[in-house]
Amino acid sequence: MERLEHPFIHRLCVIGVGLIGGSLARALRQAGAVREIVGAGRQAAALETAQQLGVIDRYDTDLAGAVAGADVVVVAVPLGAMYPVFAALAGHLPPGCVLTDVGSAKGSVLGDVRRAFGQAPATFVPAHPIAGTEKSGVEASFAELFRRRRVILTPLVETDAGAHQLVRRMWQATGAEVIDMGVRHHDEVLAATSHLPHVLAYTLVDTLARLDDRAEIFRYAAGGFRDFTRIASSDPQMWHDICLANRDALLEVIGVFTQDLARLRQAIHDGDSAAILDVFRRAKHARDNLYLE
Amino acid sequence: MERLEHPFIHRLCVIGVGLIGGSLARALRQAGAVREIVGAGRQAAALETAQQLGVIDRYDTDLAGAVAGADVVVVAVPLGAMYPVFAALAGHLPPGCVLTDVGSAKGSVLGDVRRAFGQAPATFVPAHPIAGTEKSGVEASFAELFRRRRVILTPLVETDAGAHQLVRRMWQATGAEVIDMGVRHHDEVLAATSHLPHVLAYTLVDTLARLDDRAEIFRYAAGGFRDFTRIASSDPQMWHDICLANRDALLEVIGVFTQDLARLRQAIHDGDSAAILDVFRRAKHARDNLYLE
Repeated sequence: MERLEHPFIHRLCVIGVGLIGGSLARALRQAGAVREIVGAGRQAAALETAQQLGVIDRYDTDLAGAVAGADVVVVAVPLGAMYPVFAALAGHLPPGCVLTDVGSAKGSVLGDVRRAFGQAPATFVPAHPIAGTEKSGVEASFAELFRRRRVILTPLVETDAGAHQLVRRMWQATGAEVIDMGVRHHDEVLAATSHLPHVLAYTLVDTLARLDDRAEIFRYAAGGFRDFTRIASSDPQMWHDICLANRDALLEVIGVFTQDLARLRQAIHDGDSAAILDVFRRAKHARDNLYLE
Repeated sequence: MERLEHPFIHRLCVIGVGLIGGSLARALRQAGAVREIVGAGRQAAALETAQQLGVIDRYDTDLAGAVAGADVVVVAVPLGAMYPVFAALAGHLPPGCVLTDVGSAKGSVLGDVRRAFGQAPATFVPAHPIAGTEKSGVEASFAELFRRRRVILTPLVETDAGAHQLVRRMWQATGAEVIDMGVRHHDEVLAATSHLPHVLAYTLVDTLARLDDRAEIFRYAAGGFRDFTRIASSDPQMWHDICLANRDALLEVIGVFTQDLARLRQAIHDGDSAAILDVFRRAKHARDNLYLE
C-alpha cells in the first residue's frame, strides 16, 4: 500500500487487540492513515504485549478513558463480549466519534448496540472483514491480513454518510475491497459460506475423534482431509459465539445441508449412479467455475 | 530417492496410465527399479501421450498382449472398471507374475478378483497408495507423488510371501511408507478419513451452488471454505465409483456424522453453550494434537 502523507484518523481506539484488531492497527499504521493508536480491553498483559510489539502506542483498561478524544473506535472483541463493551461505551463516546465493529454476524451486533445505546448512534457503521487465520491473539496479527480481502459494511438508513465514508476509507487503507450489504443478507451469506463450513469441519473432526480407532484414523488422514479440517483448529469460544449470534440463518442452512446429505446417502444406499453423479458433477462445476479468484 | 544399481522389476505392466499409474511408473523409473514399462488401457490416445511423455516405453490396448512376459502387473483403473480388467486378465497372467492394484476400497476389489479368477491368485497383493491430487490423467502425474505418503497393503492369508515382499519393495522404491492392514479395517478407516470428507465437501458445494444467491455466496467465500471445498473438484466418476465400492462402511460413517450434526444443530437451537463448546474444543484438541505429521 502507498503510504499516505497525512493521517485521516487522529486517534484510533481499538477495543480488543487480538488477531483482527491488532492486524487493523498494524495495517493503518503502515499505511500512514493514523496518528495515534490506543488499545483497550480487559487483559492488561495482552495490551502490554501489543504495546511492546508496537501495534498500539498506549493502552487503557478503562473503556471510558480509552475512548477519550478518539475520532474512531473499533470494537474487535468476540461476539459474546460485544454487549458489555457497548454498554460501557454508552454516554462516553466523544461527540462525532465514529463507532464500528468487526463482528462476523451483523444482526446480533446491531441488537447489542440498540440495547446498549437505546438506538444505534448515527455514527455507528457495522463492518465485517472477511479475513482471518485459524490463529488468535495479537502475536498472530500482521499488517497484510486484509490485503485483497473483502470487508462488508452493513450501514443502516440512519447511518451518517460521513461516518460511513470514513469507515470505508479506513478499510480501503488496509488494502481491502469494501462493499455494502444489508444486515440480514450479510448474515445469510456468511452462514452459508463460513459458519456452516466451520460447523461441518468441527463436527467431522469430533466424529472421527470419537471413533474407536481414532489414532489410526488421524494417522491415515489424507491430504484433502487435512485441508478440510484446518478450520476446526479455530478458536472454539469465538465460533461458539458466532453460532449463537447468527443462530437463525445458521440453523436454516444446516437444515438445507442435512436434507441434501440425506438425499445423497439414500442415492448411495440405492446405488443410484445418476443421482450421485449429478451431485458430484454440479459441485465440481460450481467449484471450478464460480470462483472468480 | 537413491537410484538402484539393478532393477528388481524386469517388465512392469501398468493398466490405466493416469495420475496414479503414471506417477508410479515415473517414480519406479526414476528410482532405477524397473527395466521396461508397458502401458495398457482402452484409450490409445492417452497411452500415446504417456509414451511421448516418457512415462511408459510402449503400450498395448490388448490386455492379454500387454501383460505377456511381465513380472508385475499393476491395475490402476477406476474402481468401477476393475472387474472387466481382471476378467480380461484371467488365464493370461504369466506364471508367477505378481498382480496388484491401487484401488481406494479393498473389499470391492477383492470381490472383483474372486469373481474374475474364481479365487484370488496367490500372487495378488491388494494395495492402496494414500496419495493423489484433485487432478486426473497422465499429464498430471509426477514421480514424487508418493514420497513420504503411506501405502496400505491388505494381503490375504493365502497371499504368497514373495509377492507381498515385491509389492512392498516396489512402493518403498517410490519413497512411500508401506504398512499392512486387514481389508475390512482398511475400508472402515478410509470411509472415515477420505470418503466421508469428500461426500461432505461435494454436498456442501452443491448445497451452496443451488441457493438463490449462489454467485454472491461463492464471491464472499472466505479462506477456510476454499480449502474445504478443494476436494469437491476431484473427478466425479472416480468418487462415484468409490462411494459405491465402499458403500457399507461409508453409509455407516455418514450415519454417525448425521447424528452428530443433528445433535450440534439442536445445541445451537437450544443455545446450549456447554454442548457447543464441548464439540468445538474436542475437535480443536484432536486436530491440534492427534496429527503426527
